[in-house]
Amino acid sequence: MDTASLDALLTPRTIAVVGASQREDRPGAVLLNNLVNGGFPGTIYPVNPRVAEIAGLRCYSSLSEVPSVVDLAFIVLPRHSVLPTIQECVDVGVRAVAIITAGFGEADDWGCDQQAAIATLLDEHDIAAIGPNTIGLVAMGGKLRGSFVRFPIWEDGPVAIAAQSGVFAGSLAEQEMARPAGRLGMHMSISLGNRVGTDETALLRYCDANDAIDVIGLYLESFREPMRFLECATDVKRRKPIVLLKSGRTPSGAAAAASHTGSLAVDDAVLDDLLYQHGVIRVHDDEEFLATLRSLCVPSRPAGRRVGVVTFSGAFGVIASDLLTETDLKLADYSGQTLARFASLLPEWQHPRNPADLWPAVDLGAREALLQGLEAALCDPSVDQVLAILLAVPNAHFEDMLAGLSETLDRSPCKPLHVYIVGGRCAEWTTTFSGLGIPVHPSLRVAVRSMAAVTWYEEVREVSPSAYTRDATTLIEN
Amino acid sequence: MDTASLDALLTPRTIAVVGASQREDRPGAVLLNNLVNGGFPGTIYPVNPRVAEIAGLRCYSSLSEVPSVVDLAFIVLPRHSVLPTIQECVDVGVRAVAIITAGFGEADDWGCDQQAAIATLLDEHDIAAIGPNTIGLVAMGGKLRGSFVRFPIWEDGPVAIAAQSGVFAGSLAEQEMARPAGRLGMHMSISLGNRVGTDETALLRYCDANDAIDVIGLYLESFREPMRFLECATDVKRRKPIVLLKSGRTPSGAAAAASHTGSLAVDDAVLDDLLYQHGVIRVHDDEEFLATLRSLCVPSRPAGRRVGVVTFSGAFGVIASDLLTETDLKLADYSGQTLARFASLLPEWQHPRNPADLWPAVDLGAREALLQGLEAALCDPSVDQVLAILLAVPNAHFEDMLAGLSETLDRSPCKPLHVYIVGGRCAEWTTTFSGLGIPVHPSLRVAVRSMAAVTWYEEVREVSPSAYTRDATTLIEN
Repeated sequence: MDTASLDALLTPRTIAVVGASQREDRPGAVLLNNLVNGGFPGTIYPVNPRVAEIAGLRCYSSLSEVPSVVDLAFIVLPRHSVLPTIQECVDVGVRAVAIITAGFGEADDWGCDQQAAIATLLDEHDIAAIGPNTIGLVAMGGKLRGSFVRFPIWEDGPVAIAAQSGVFAGSLAEQEMARPAGRLGMHMSISLGNRVGTDETALLRYCDANDAIDVIGLYLESFREPMRFLECATDVKRRKPIVLLKSGRTPSGAAAAASHTGSLAVDDAVLDDLLYQHGVIRVHDDEEFLATLRSLCVPSRPAGRRVGVVTFSGAFGVIASDLLTETDLKLADYSGQTLARFASLLPEWQHPRNPADLWPAVDLGAREALLQGLEAALCDPSVDQVLAILLAVPNAHFEDMLAGLSETLDRSPCKPLHVYIVGGRCAEWTTTFSGLGIPVHPSLRVAVRSMAAVTWYEEVREVSPSAYTRDATTLIEN
Repeated sequence: MDTASLDALLTPRTIAVVGASQREDRPGAVLLNNLVNGGFPGTIYPVNPRVAEIAGLRCYSSLSEVPSVVDLAFIVLPRHSVLPTIQECVDVGVRAVAIITAGFGEADDWGCDQQAAIATLLDEHDIAAIGPNTIGLVAMGGKLRGSFVRFPIWEDGPVAIAAQSGVFAGSLAEQEMARPAGRLGMHMSISLGNRVGTDETALLRYCDANDAIDVIGLYLESFREPMRFLECATDVKRRKPIVLLKSGRTPSGAAAAASHTGSLAVDDAVLDDLLYQHGVIRVHDDEEFLATLRSLCVPSRPAGRRVGVVTFSGAFGVIASDLLTETDLKLADYSGQTLARFASLLPEWQHPRNPADLWPAVDLGAREALLQGLEAALCDPSVDQVLAILLAVPNAHFEDMLAGLSETLDRSPCKPLHVYIVGGRCAEWTTTFSGLGIPVHPSLRVAVRSMAAVTWYEEVREVSPSAYTRDATTLIEN
């Protein structure tokens, strides 16, 4: 599958929805409405023999009745109808298909056989495909909101996400888009499903060539061709970071993956090693996945491991120090000038250090403490990146603390700044910081882990895979 | 320090606030207002020589002018005035003090000397104390909201929290109380500060004897007397679980702790071992701390490690399986009857297993899938506890999904049920589940880790410390 053929899938001019529905909760209705409401600029042809019109669009009784070439056909039909429909796609010259229907390779013997027949047909006729068992795709390059998860809002941005499992990426995207600010802007979110056509490697190549995409996130339960993926990844990562959540790491996780996507188990220690050598950022849960993608969207990247911590709670400073040490980040040695700036904010008996605990400065003016503290840390040449731990509690002087924040940051050197906020007004503060493009993390742990991931990526992005220390043949292909 | 003497601190009848202030943002004003608004049933005496009345209360120029015995004096003064005021407390027979002022043992040589003198005075005269360097305490037994973090709401409940660092516990408590539902009800939250008087061991004993307290949470950067603490903890844990967040685990964390609370480093591997042997639940960050306390507040405790997973995303089921395996929990083997119940919800080609992926059932009715799925898992005799992974996305049939939830749960056996929710309407769903007393966790990782912690606790609660495998003398006392 070369990159060119993905154009019909990701930037089609004409779309058919085979199995479009009038019943508003059915996938065939939600998908069609998403496409229409998403502002798709080309033509949409609903296909359903029992209906004359859906969503204000004329409905066709079959693909062969559609009056123009169809670039992309969504197939939202009972599973017994899918193979005949693919044959119809071949007959009328459809260029790409998204097979939403489930119950194939992940299900029973009948499903496996049907999937094999579908794959052969698609391959013979060079038709790009995702699925079966996919929720669809959102591709902003084509103004294509082709998913049966309802997305009332979608924010374009530098991230592309591809997931073997659709609901995973769909629910995370929906959650992101429901945030009042600081949404992870996604240029593309694609559910690969059972991968009869497009696989993760083809996707990586497409993302690499697409200038609108800067950061790639993958959720996989298996690799279609592991070594081909790794070779591609280690090339792509020189230009764009790849964050991978590969589950099925444990025996029971692998068994669950086998049932979910038909994935076969691999030796996870070997895989882990290979991902490390090839510069793929591996994460272990959804929280870390999103936090790492968010941290990679920050325009500035860390020049090194030295972290300046500014905190309004000494305890959180200690906890952060533990987390930083465990992830191989370092507490920066603040310069004399920086320490003097902190000292000027603090009672005379407190000797500032890193982490700089600014709680005792709150009495003297919390707003000054926050703004000057952040500026002092960002300006220090021995600091590569800053972690700020803030308390959004309804206390003294906090009311107007965020006024002037934007000016302070504009005045400071452009270094990554990550924020963790505790307190009842956390949501409000998160919106303010997020609105300024600063990643606010849901836990101190993922804040630090995502900082470590980005730092590691910057260290290895130019590096070629080191000698393989493990035998890659144990990565069973499926 | 015996338990009796803590009564003056935690259930005083008369309180003086020495350093009460009229300026509303000052700690001496916030603390006084908290006490008044918190409905303290006894008498409050503000003390400040420059003011006649504060918050509608007559103000006294000194402690000796106060017309009755003072059970508890809060001291909110500049640090130079603290020692003379403690002498005044001795002179007028104050029974307990909370020294809010910072700048003592954690600061400079002068502070250390003063703290030593204060400790001697308090000890000689048997005065209970917290601080210096404390934000105060909230003790619902005494209707005492004696903190300078503003708490407009406080919900009583089975949890007691004691923290060496005040702002840590204060900001977490404030955040909890700002939740619309599912607040961690706290009978007591106490900031021990530099511990001239009350330490963590005295607190444990007090909590053990207090029937309103079922669960104990501690944040510590050091132990005042480690072996005494461990001996007490392993006895108390037979009745009440103890969750400990002990930071300063790494060299840089320990250095930060030394600066924050003057804590000395200990060998963390030895400590970890000893905590394990003594049945203390150790957690590593604030998210895990709160999640574990929340899970311990569930009325039913798990009878074993077998977890039934019900999920609306196959991928999250796989990720959960990995996390469960890593924490030594097990996926339950669903009984034939349970599998048949799941099968009745699913398309004919899907063979149910654990995790039960109910996404394919959404088409057939999401509400039925959720309610019947939960009931099936809870009713299975091979299931000790249930983890439900839900999607709060604006999709088909989700609107009325939560109707009937309460009846379903009432009908099912009383087993722990933990929930993780993804999607844009997560906050709304969280409120509904939380309102039913079901813990909803902010991440799948802490959901599983807290389940594992409670399960482990139930296994070891009756067990005596095993033979010490490490030399406890390396736990330096400070």
